[in-house]
This record gives sequence, C-alpha cells and structure tokens, in this order.
Amino acid sequence: MKLKLAPVEGAVAAPQGFRTGGVFCDIKRLGTGKGSDKGQKLDLALIVSDVPCAVAGLFTTNQVCAAPVKVCVPRTAKGIAQAVVINSGNANACTGRIGMKDALAMADLTESTLGIPRGYALVASTGRIGVNLPMPQVRAGIADCATQLGHSVDHANRATEAIMTSDTKPKQVAVQLKLGGKTVRIGGTCKGAGMIQPGMSPTGARPAALPSGVPAGLHATMLGFITTDAAVEARTLQKALTEAVANSFNRITVDGDMSTNDTVLVLANGLSGNDRIKSTKHKDFAAFQAALNHVCLSLAKMIVRDGEGVHRVVTVRVSGAKSIAEADAAARAVGNSALVKTSWHGGDPNWGRIIDALGYSPATLVEDKVDIGYSDPGSKKILWSLRRGQPTKATFAELCKAAAPDEFDLHIRLNLGKGEAVLYAADLTEAYVDYNKGNVADPTTLGG
Amino acid sequence: MKLKLAPVEGAVAAPQGFRTGGVFCDIKRLGTGKGSDKGQKLDLALIVSDVPCAVAGLFTTNQVCAAPVKVCVPRTAKGIAQAVVINSGNANACTGRIGMKDALAMADLTESTLGIPRGYALVASTGRIGVNLPMPQVRAGIADCATQLGHSVDHANRATEAIMTSDTKPKQVAVQLKLGGKTVRIGGTCKGAGMIQPGMSPTGARPAALPSGVPAGLHATMLGFITTDAAVEARTLQKALTEAVANSFNRITVDGDMSTNDTVLVLANGLSGNDRIKSTKHKDFAAFQAALNHVCLSLAKMIVRDGEGVHRVVTVRVSGAKSIAEADAAARAVGNSALVKTSWHGGDPNWGRIIDALGYSPATLVEDKVDIGYSDPGSKKILWSLRRGQPTKATFAELCKAAAPDEFDLHIRLNLGKGEAVLYAADLTEAYVDYNKGNVADPTTLGG
Repeated sequence: MKLKLAPVEGAVAAPQGFRTGGVFCDIKRLGTGKGSDKGQKLDLALIVSDVPCAVAGLFTTNQVCAAPVKVCVPRTAKGIAQAVVINSGNANACTGRIGMKDALAMADLTESTLGIPRGYALVASTGRIGVNLPMPQVRAGIADCATQLGHSVDHANRATEAIMTSDTKPKQVAVQLKLGGKTVRIGGTCKGAGMIQPGMSPTGARPAALPSGVPAGLHATMLGFITTDAAVEARTLQKALTEAVANSFNRITVDGDMSTNDTVLVLANGLSGNDRIKSTKHKDFAAFQAALNHVCLSLAKMIVRDGEGVHRVVTVRVSGAKSIAEADAAARAVGNSALVKTSWHGGDPNWGRIIDALGYSPATLVEDKVDIGYSDPGSKKILWSLRRGQPTKATFAELCKAAAPDEFDLHIRLNLGKGEAVLYAADLTEAYVDYNKGNVADPTTLGG
Repeated sequence: MKLKLAPVEGAVAAPQGFRTGGVFCDIKRLGTGKGSDKGQKLDLALIVSDVPCAVAGLFTTNQVCAAPVKVCVPRTAKGIAQAVVINSGNANACTGRIGMKDALAMADLTESTLGIPRGYALVASTGRIGVNLPMPQVRAGIADCATQLGHSVDHANRATEAIMTSDTKPKQVAVQLKLGGKTVRIGGTCKGAGMIQPGMSPTGARPAALPSGVPAGLHATMLGFITTDAAVEARTLQKALTEAVANSFNRITVDGDMSTNDTVLVLANGLSGNDRIKSTKHKDFAAFQAALNHVCLSLAKMIVRDGEGVHRVVTVRVSGAKSIAEADAAARAVGNSALVKTSWHGGDPNWGRIIDALGYSPATLVEDKVDIGYSDPGSKKILWSLRRGQPTKATFAELCKAAAPDEFDLHIRLNLGKGEAVLYAADLTEAYVDYNKGNVADPTTLGG
C-alpha cells in the first residue's frame, strides 16, 4: 500500500474539533520554594475536543508511577475522554495521597470549567519528583487556559511550549490523509529530553520476564499527545497506538532512565466523518495505522535529537539475533553503554567498545560471527568495520568519516537467527553531565 | 574471631619467594601505529615465584573474551602455576587466531626465559581492543624484565606501574598474619579505572538467568594479582578467591561496562611453612579467607576511588529486597543510572532519581515501603530522606550536607524481604566524558 500523507500545520489543533492552549501559572518556582518566574515559559496546557472521543493510552511500566498516571490508566481503559490537562515543572510523582488528590482535582476542575462530563478529563505531569503541586496556581492556570483555547497554529504552539521541560525545541507534527474519500488529520505534540528510555504498556503493568535471561522492559519522562478527527473504535485505537508506540517511543533512549511519568495518549473524535474503523480488519485500518506510526515515529525521533546535551543521534540496527527480545537487549546494551556513547561523542569508530557491550548484554553472541558497520541514516550502503569478528580493510580515516555525521546508522549483525530490533540512541556529552548535576545552591537548576 | 592483620610493604613482592618487575617495551604506541614513547610509563610486568604455586582465578563472563583469558582459564583449572606475564596498552581482545598465538607465545617465552615448566605461566593483557600485539616489542620486554626481577618495594612498584592504563594512582596492598604460629603474607596489586563493572566466574561462563527476571551477571578491564606464601590446596584456594571476589571486585562499578579481559589470579607458594590448608574446614581457613577478603576489598575500593573522572564514591547498601539477586539488581540500577550518577556529581540529594531507578530495576518494589538515607562510610547513623515512600523532615540543606562528602553510604531499604547487597559505585563527571571521547585526530588518546 502506498500511503499518501501530506504534512499540515497546527499540530494537535489541526484535526477538526480540537482546541488547545497553554498558559503560565508559576508551577516550577513555587514547587522549589522560589519566587515567580512570570514572563518565562508556559507551564500548563489544555487539549480539548468539542465532542467526546475514543481514547487510548500507554503508560510507564516503572513500578514507581506518578499520580496522574494512576488517574489516567482506568480512565483510558473506559475508552472515552474529551480533554487532557498537562503541567510541566512538577511531576506529581512520589507525592502520596496528596498527589492523588491533586491529580484528581486537576481533572475535576478541567471538567467543570470546560463543562464536559465527569471522568472525561485526563491528566499528565512532568518535572521534579517528590514535590507537591502548588494547587492554587494550578487551579488559576486551568481557569485561565480554558478562556484562551483555539484552533490556530499559535494555540497549538502554546500547548507544546507549556509541556516542555529541558526541551530546547518544540516537538510537534500533523499529517492529513484520505480515508474512504474523507479527509482525516492526525496531530501530535510531545516533550522529553532526559530520563528517556520509555517502556510503556497499556496498563502500566510490567511485561513478564523474557526468555534467556533477557530483562523485562528495561526501557524516561516523555509525554506524547495525539489528536485525530478519524472515527476509530476505542479498542481498535488502543491496538493501533500500542503497535505505533512499540516501534517509536518504546524504541528510544537518551540516558537509559525510564521515568515515573511516561504517557502517550491519543484522542479520536470522529468529526472527519470517515466510516468508523471498528476493527483491525476494517478496510481503512492499515492506512490509519501507517499514519499513526508516522506521527509517533516522527515525534519519538525529535525527542532523541533534542536529548539533553545530545550532539549525535545513532540508530542502532541489530539483526540476526536469536530472537526479537535478544535483538532488543543487544541494541539497548550498545545504546546505553557509557563507553560506546562517549566514543560516539568523540566521533571514534570504536568497534571494540561496541562488541564489548554486545558481549555483556543478555543476548547470545558468537564473537567470530559479528558484523559491525556504518551507513548514512536509512541507507543500505554500509561501511563495515568488522565482518565475522575480524576487522575489515576499512581504514581508520574512512571509519572516522562514517562516524562523524550528526546522525548515522550503526548496523550490527549477530548472524545467529532472525531477531531484529532498532533503537534510536544518542551520544553522552559533557553538556549532559553539566545539565544534570545542577547546582544545589540554586534548586531551580535541579532536574527531575 | 578477631583477625590480626598487619599492613606490610612490598605488595605482590611481600610474600616469601616472589620476585616481580616492570619494564617499558613500547606496546601502546606501536599498537596504534605511532612512534615510541620511550621514557614514558612501564608496560610489561612479571610476577614470579621461586617454586610452583597453587593457583586460582576468576575471569570475565563477557561472551567476548580476550585471548589471554582463554589461555588462563584451562591453566588455572589445573591448579598449578609459577609466573604471570602482564602487558598494558593492548588488550589482545578480538584479535582472532593471531591473538591466541600471541598470548600463548607470551606464556611460552616467559616459561623458557625463566626456566619454569611448560604450562606454568599465566597471561593477562589490558588496553585497546582489536589491535594485534607488537610481538617483537613484547618478546624484548619479557627478556628484559626477566633480568630485572627482585623482592624490593621498588620491584613491586614497577610491576604495579606496568599494568596501569588510565589509572592515575598505583593500587597495591600487603598484609601479614599468623597461621598456626607461622607468619603468612598476602600481597596484591590491581589496575582499572574505566570499563569497570566486573562479573567474574572461575571459568568465565555466564551464570544462568536468575529468578524474577533479574538479569544474569550484568556486570569492566580490571586486572588483579594476588600472591601469598601461605600453603593452600588449589581447590580450597579457588573457593576462597571466589568468595572474596564475590564481595569485592564483583561488587564495584565505575561505568557499568564489563570488560573482555577482567581477570583476578592468586598464587600461593606455601613457603611460609604453615600447615597446608586442604579444605574450607581446616582450622586456619577462616583466618586466611578473612585476610584474602581484606586484600581483595581494599584493592576493589581503590579501583572505584581512582575511576575515570570520579569525584565521589558512593557505597550503595540495599537491604530488605525479596532476594539477594533482587537486592543486587536494585543496587546496580541505582549505581549505573546516568541521572543518579550526575546528581551525585552535583551533590544533589535527589531521592526522586534514586526511587525512579529502583522502580525500573528488575527488583520488586513497593513505593510506600521504600526508605532512602545517607551516612558517613560504614556508619550506622543514617539521615533519612525518605521513609516508607514519604519525604522526611530532613531539610534540603541537611541532605545536601550528607551528599557532599567525597565518600558516603547510600542506604536503601525495600522492606519486602531479607535480600541484601552492597555496590561500590561512583559519580559521572564531565571529566569521564572528556577522557573517553578521546580525540580521533590523535589515536593515542583513544581508550580501550
């Protein structure tokens, strides 16, 4: 199937019937006991549909999960929602009963202010862990934001800015496609730069341990919000989102740390008038899935590209593993190795560190079967540094050139089986360390 | 039992009947195609006993293991040896058949030059992976070193210097104790600063996957050499070393990367004249074990303290886990988290990052049961930041003070079971990144 996707403006406000907004309500400074940073970045967003939506979501599998996640899991399972309220500057994680009360109060206030049914608002938070939300400010923010909602590009931009934390760039996308003659749009916005290695599931429950000692879902805060005017039944929407996230947000790492707050939500309000996609067998499902995949992967890659201190983005492509789980484990061992990541920072084509990481990963490896090579992103033209465990005739200068671009693909073939996995990974720089060590003399510099 | 251990000088040359030496033979520069750095640090060492020794060893469980490890495993299993030859500047890892031939040639030449029986020399290497050894230089080095062996403190110091790579300080220790009226000495030297998270076993084979999804031995190059004039039967010596390493070298991490070359060897020549310790039930076994534990733990801690770019050393003490394996997994998740390590660098008592790492570790955790606190090294006086998942009344300033020393203990109680584990870990600094990114324009700056 040849999918025709046209980029459109407006991100989460692009699909029909969605209004968004972002305001400043002074969440972060209060959360750390400091004075106002009024006039600085926005910190509270609303995404609202004119009508109730089918909803689907995936949530962190961290055993320590934030109050907003605990609120969203059962609400999403019901399959119906109409609005999302999001704050940055405070994760509302490890905040006990008060945290749960605050998350529910955010949802309640959103519903009453917008005049939508009880239980139809979802909640997400990102920022420092272990600090209670400054609720007077949050309440004022929700009330303020609700008066400023709109469909414009500027409204979408404000929502995107409001959810950013250490992000240096807004991350958003929207596409348009035809489904059965009707024009359907899918828009998305996301945030995330550090504490990034999501491993999300629909219920937040951890997957069982995988065979061969491969660790279960060792996979930060990222938040992603997707809107569409497609008509899709909620269960089918969940299947589509689970599939899309498995190949996008769950395949990225910046620092290997999975957050307590990772959340991806999709709201489908059906206003495009397409024939409702009631199952994965519906004639339009494949096209919808492909478009959703495109939106999720575009957003996920933006997170890695804007990762804290990141200079180089490396797509680790493992094939020939004994299983998909082993391919995944191998890719994560390489993509999270401090020594591999610092070598990427230095532009050093150090296959020794790569094979070392492969060797200690839970994946099975036979040294004299391993191939390691480089290509431009997505290219099949690979410069091999190692074939069957032996250095090739490629010169150090040639390999340095291959490892020099800001983005390249690293190809690893284990040549043992059919398991494949891709991981979008990044280098480790002094800037990452400097940012995350913060300065205890100024608690506002301290990260999540 | 109250063990009386007296520190003595001379490290690996301290026990009776051991001679050591270190020379410069120009291994590293040649290995990277650069000219001589003659006059710079020593790069080849010999440790030699006057008589054959009982021998025991533990080796990396990385599936990619260096040629010298492959030579040592079967030789150590025979339980008898008389000399060790060690080079720095080249790991002789991923070097194929030539690498194996070179490692065997190093052993052969050591035996013939010293006039000891065939098969009685052991070999170890450390440095860059994937480069063949410059054998003419290595041969000249062994011949040169064999003419310069001696018992003096200076001889021991030269051996220790010769095995160092990115180490900024020599790491050695020796103790003396009484066994059945006889004076016994144990001396040790080691190296290691990066690619450090050893997980060694007597055969280099990986342990089976552990229960509850806990990954098997996810655990750098460190080399450790221990000599003693105690008389200990080889199998019993292996048991003692396995036990000592389980609580020392296998409990450290600098960067979470397990090396292809990790090796710890102990040679016992019996020249002290003590009653031969033939089993773990022998009356002197416990005292010998305790002394060996002391030597191994002292050396292991020196590696973390001198870890690449390390400023703060943190002893992570996990208790109350469901099992020992889960306690270990929890400690390693914390001790290898980029965000926890950068917060240690900043002196930020960020319990949010700690509980986040615990939450994604394979260990079972219940958020409202977790305690997190700080103490001086080895002290029972703990300042808690979190009790039962709730922040305590300790002030941010008090917690900052607790996380400010160059060394402190981090106490984590999961309060779910009886599993305990200790991990000697370190912060992540800009200096680590800077060192390990190297400079591709000068390959001699590129690490292993």
